[in-house]
Amino acid sequence: VSRLSSTSSGRLDVSGIYPPIATPFNMDESIAFDKLTENMQKWNKIPFGGYVVQGSNGEYVYQTAEERIKVVEHVVKAAAPGKVILAGSGCESTRDTIEMTNRMADVGADGALVVTPSYYKGGMHNRALISHFTKVADDSKIPILLYSVPGNTGIDLDPEVIIVLSCHPNIIGLKDSGGDIAKLAHLVISTQSNDFQIMAGSAGFLLPAYLIGCVGGVCGAANMLGQELCDLEQLYKQGKLKEATNLQQRIVAPNACVTKRFGVPGLKVAMEWFGYYGGPVRSPLQPITSEQEEIMRTVFKLSGFIH
Amino acid sequence: VSRLSSTSSGRLDVSGIYPPIATPFNMDESIAFDKLTENMQKWNKIPFGGYVVQGSNGEYVYQTAEERIKVVEHVVKAAAPGKVILAGSGCESTRDTIEMTNRMADVGADGALVVTPSYYKGGMHNRALISHFTKVADDSKIPILLYSVPGNTGIDLDPEVIIVLSCHPNIIGLKDSGGDIAKLAHLVISTQSNDFQIMAGSAGFLLPAYLIGCVGGVCGAANMLGQELCDLEQLYKQGKLKEATNLQQRIVAPNACVTKRFGVPGLKVAMEWFGYYGGPVRSPLQPITSEQEEIMRTVFKLSGFIH
Amino acid sequence: VSRLSSTSSGRLDVSGIYPPIATPFNMDESIAFDKLTENMQKWNKIPFGGYVVQGSNGEYVYQTAEERIKVVEHVVKAAAPGKVILAGSGCESTRDTIEMTNRMADVGADGALVVTPSYYKGGMHNRALISHFTKVADDSKIPILLYSVPGNTGIDLDPEVIIVLSCHPNIIGLKDSGGDIAKLAHLVISTQSNDFQIMAGSAGFLLPAYLIGCVGGVCGAANMLGQELCDLEQLYKQGKLKEATNLQQRIVAPNACVTKRFGVPGLKVAMEWFGYYGGPVRSPLQPITSEQEEIMRTVFKLSGFIH
Amino acid sequence: VSRLSSTSSGRLDVSGIYPPIATPFNMDESIAFDKLTENMQKWNKIPFGGYVVQGSNGEYVYQTAEERIKVVEHVVKAAAPGKVILAGSGCESTRDTIEMTNRMADVGADGALVVTPSYYKGGMHNRALISHFTKVADDSKIPILLYSVPGNTGIDLDPEVIIVLSCHPNIIGLKDSGGDIAKLAHLVISTQSNDFQIMAGSAGFLLPAYLIGCVGGVCGAANMLGQELCDLEQLYKQGKLKEATNLQQRIVAPNACVTKRFGVPGLKVAMEWFGYYGGPVRSPLQPITSEQEEIMRTVFKLSGFIH
Repeated sequence: VSRLSSTSSGRLDVSGIYPPIATPFNMDESIAFDKLTENMQKWNKIPFGGYVVQGSNGEYVYQTAEERIKVVEHVVKAAAPGKVILAGSGCESTRDTIEMTNRMADVGADGALVVTPSYYKGGMHNRALISHFTKVADDSKIPILLYSVPGNTGIDLDPEVIIVLSCHPNIIGLKDSGGDIAKLAHLVISTQSNDFQIMAGSAGFLLPAYLIGCVGGVCGAANMLGQELCDLEQLYKQGKLKEATNLQQRIVAPNACVTKRFGVPGLKVAMEWFGYYGGPVRSPLQPITSEQEEIMRTVFKLSGFIH
Repeated sequence: VSRLSSTSSGRLDVSGIYPPIATPFNMDESIAFDKLTENMQKWNKIPFGGYVVQGSNGEYVYQTAEERIKVVEHVVKAAAPGKVILAGSGCESTRDTIEMTNRMADVGADGALVVTPSYYKGGMHNRALISHFTKVADDSKIPILLYSVPGNTGIDLDPEVIIVLSCHPNIIGLKDSGGDIAKLAHLVISTQSNDFQIMAGSAGFLLPAYLIGCVGGVCGAANMLGQELCDLEQLYKQGKLKEATNLQQRIVAPNACVTKRFGVPGLKVAMEWFGYYGGPVRSPLQPITSEQEEIMRTVFKLSGFIH
Repeated sequence: VSRLSSTSSGRLDVSGIYPPIATPFNMDESIAFDKLTENMQKWNKIPFGGYVVQGSNGEYVYQTAEERIKVVEHVVKAAAPGKVILAGSGCESTRDTIEMTNRMADVGADGALVVTPSYYKGGMHNRALISHFTKVADDSKIPILLYSVPGNTGIDLDPEVIIVLSCHPNIIGLKDSGGDIAKLAHLVISTQSNDFQIMAGSAGFLLPAYLIGCVGGVCGAANMLGQELCDLEQLYKQGKLKEATNLQQRIVAPNACVTKRFGVPGLKVAMEWFGYYGGPVRSPLQPITSEQEEIMRTVFKLSGFIH
Repeated sequence: VSRLSSTSSGRLDVSGIYPPIATPFNMDESIAFDKLTENMQKWNKIPFGGYVVQGSNGEYVYQTAEERIKVVEHVVKAAAPGKVILAGSGCESTRDTIEMTNRMADVGADGALVVTPSYYKGGMHNRALISHFTKVADDSKIPILLYSVPGNTGIDLDPEVIIVLSCHPNIIGLKDSGGDIAKLAHLVISTQSNDFQIMAGSAGFLLPAYLIGCVGGVCGAANMLGQELCDLEQLYKQGKLKEATNLQQRIVAPNACVTKRFGVPGLKVAMEWFGYYGGPVRSPLQPITSEQEEIMRTVFKLSGFIH
């Protein structure tokens, strides 16, 4: 994939800030591809490392297999040159995950973000998860990143599993949304000899994550605060720690609104404030109430991001 | 649906014992339709109320939309006359659930078992769940039953939600796998004026469930101990409580093996002992170890079901 | 202890209904011993098997070591002849539990209810719990019952642990408040050769518990519905299953109010309605709101227990 | 308290590194006061801000009220001049907590660390917790710090509660052991106008915690790696971020061993390697196995802290 940069050991370089892009829907819940194009045109002006398509913020679980692929294909075409496209390809079964990953590769994804299967919680022990990810990595045409998001799946990838899997040549990294910074630090050290790239799963701890060795962040808040998060990354890299800390602190509360507190429905409302198309969520997700919107607006105002 | 019996208020009668049938796979994980036919021929000789197809024991989450429907179609054709076919049609999104339910109706399902959506746990509040099930019931061609299985989904349907939904003319019942008998008793009383039918979700508490007013059971153990569970039902109905209690007590430990302890991989091994085709599970589920198989064999021997 | 009855193997017989008595406080939170006497005089007229003192409903965690013992002493003196006194003597450490148990024995307790220690959750593995209860039973002057109440402690006693401990000559039973009737049935069968007595920990599943072999119940609701629960026991024993079921069903919702829904603060309010002294709870517990009281009153009215 | 430093607003200054000291026991589980003196003599040579006595690492739940106070008194006397003594005074009831706090103040504690009450989980809502801490702070002779340790208590103090309580003149800070760095950052910003001091509850995220505005750390690992943690603090303050990061990374794995992985039993074994007295834990805690000790030894070796 010559247009993209590589790590020292020749792996796809996934460093930088990635918005896990929200999938825009029309009022009838059909996919609004035109709005997606418009949002992409704005995002393309921001120095993102690339895009995550069909992650949790993309409401991927609410889309058919065909829709999941079409959205990836659309983002590949709309992305500015040099942007890495990471596609969320996880399914509950190993066979479906392999097929989905390769179909997404066929339409142009550079890498795949593979969420932990989670339905039979008692059966998803370490042995099963190692087997699952190994088979997917073996058969995938593109490199994969592990994706652990216990708040949605109820499954928290064990550090031992991650360390074992970091040795696989086609497993190049991890997105961890659990938020346990000590766990992340432990993983950074334990996997660094494998050129394994760990990405913070939230803007709420982006600076601490950089500090302990993460290479970037997949941050829901980058859907509307993308430039600010890229600024934070730059401040950190330039050693301007005091300014970085101030910016990090301003981001914490708005970030909480568009993640844990109000979820994708909150995220889509906030996107509208910043000139992006948000639009409705798919059912059974419900829009936030007007009271919740007021709370969120106050938080964004107090942080100085809106007036 | 004239071939089936109705309740006093004219609803589809789902009383009785239902095996939530395991989907048989070949060694390459493709669906073994011939083995499904053979299993059905044996089950058809047992006085079941009907069959649950594509429930949790059917590994429905590991099948494509097409596969889910084909298996339902196959079971409809292979079932003896008079058996009620309840199809597991739940998807994460409301729109996919409606489409799946109606496609299953089109191939002959009599009712649908609709599991709670569960991915965005923070968003699956009571308001969202009521909205979801109401829309599905409004648009479904066949009556639906609510399906709460917190062990897999992490979502435990609130009694208040169930009571509200029991008023909907097209929501005729509930399968509850949580095992909290006091909760079930409370639901039986609170919904009885709506002719709402509650089914125990496990053989482990079948007799207590009958006692507090449940109308039947969807019991994983019925895949291999179907006649015994129908006997238990009969003993209860004839007032032979002592014999019923003895049988219930013998069933508890084997039932735990094929549900919580060893899951679907255990269930499929035990089916082989009773002359059914079990076969492999789909990955990422893993076969049980030989040590686990020995434990399970001991439990079934001590209970007197195998020698 | 000649005044009390024994099981066939000579153990203290703890069958029957036991109220886990609420500890009455004055408005300044001091213990209202006079009110305790008055409540006891009313309870003594009901055919209870005995009393549980200093269980979770007794707010034992809010009392000093001295207070815990004084209340037991008071109940011993105020109890009618023939009532078994079971004292909640569990502390976090093994040494404190042994001392507390023997001090309660010294003031007249017939048996002790020993709750699982729970603070260091990671350290309370099966080996630690078996060691704890074995040491307590070895050194206790009176027989002990295991007490598992995961809703408060976060620790759910594993069936394997209970079965191992049921072999100890000084561990005569279990109070389980988890409410998983299949687990209880499994325990009844697995421990019956040891003359082990299992008690339901809630009135919400009392009849099912009797049915699968429990010997009685320690039921918070017996603080105000004691006669009704003894009636339920009698109906069961007389084989009047239909009447028993009706009564069980009426009890479910009021029982939920004074346990899970509104806790000890709800229990104490409801006691007042039935002529008992309820009084305040100790801080940090808070009284229920007037809205909650109205809900509770409606539930009790609908069930026909108040007018 | 003239010998101690104050913050700009005149509050007790609790910045710096604090070991939450392990309580040494003799083989018969009695308190080894002589060993405590010896450990203190070693710790006094390290530039700690002070000591936490009777925190979770002190096995305070396994001690009688008298023992808890005597250990505090002993530490007060053995501490070098200028060290701040923070005593863990939390009990389940408000009244016991107030009494314990003031008795610890009487023997010389400078501040109190008050853990969340946790037994009646359903009753420990925000209103109850605000009421509890307010009453304790109102009646305490010394300033208090909130102590949230959900891994042990199952109660995670809500940010809203902390922010409300930070306005109380006698509540000067928080020790948070949950490890959610984004939550800590949010709290730092939201409470900074109140001169509220937030302390990291683990060495696993000490540097990130400093970075987002915490004033210090109460770190179990400081029982044996105290100098190293004080070095980390200094490197951070001198802006030597690269060296600080390296040291932080080396500390993560050993810290995990003496906290989440092996708990107090692991901590006490590791203390012996560094010349401190560790000794036995009180039952029901169990010593670690020899296999666990080997794992721990390997981790400490790989990190370069032992040879």
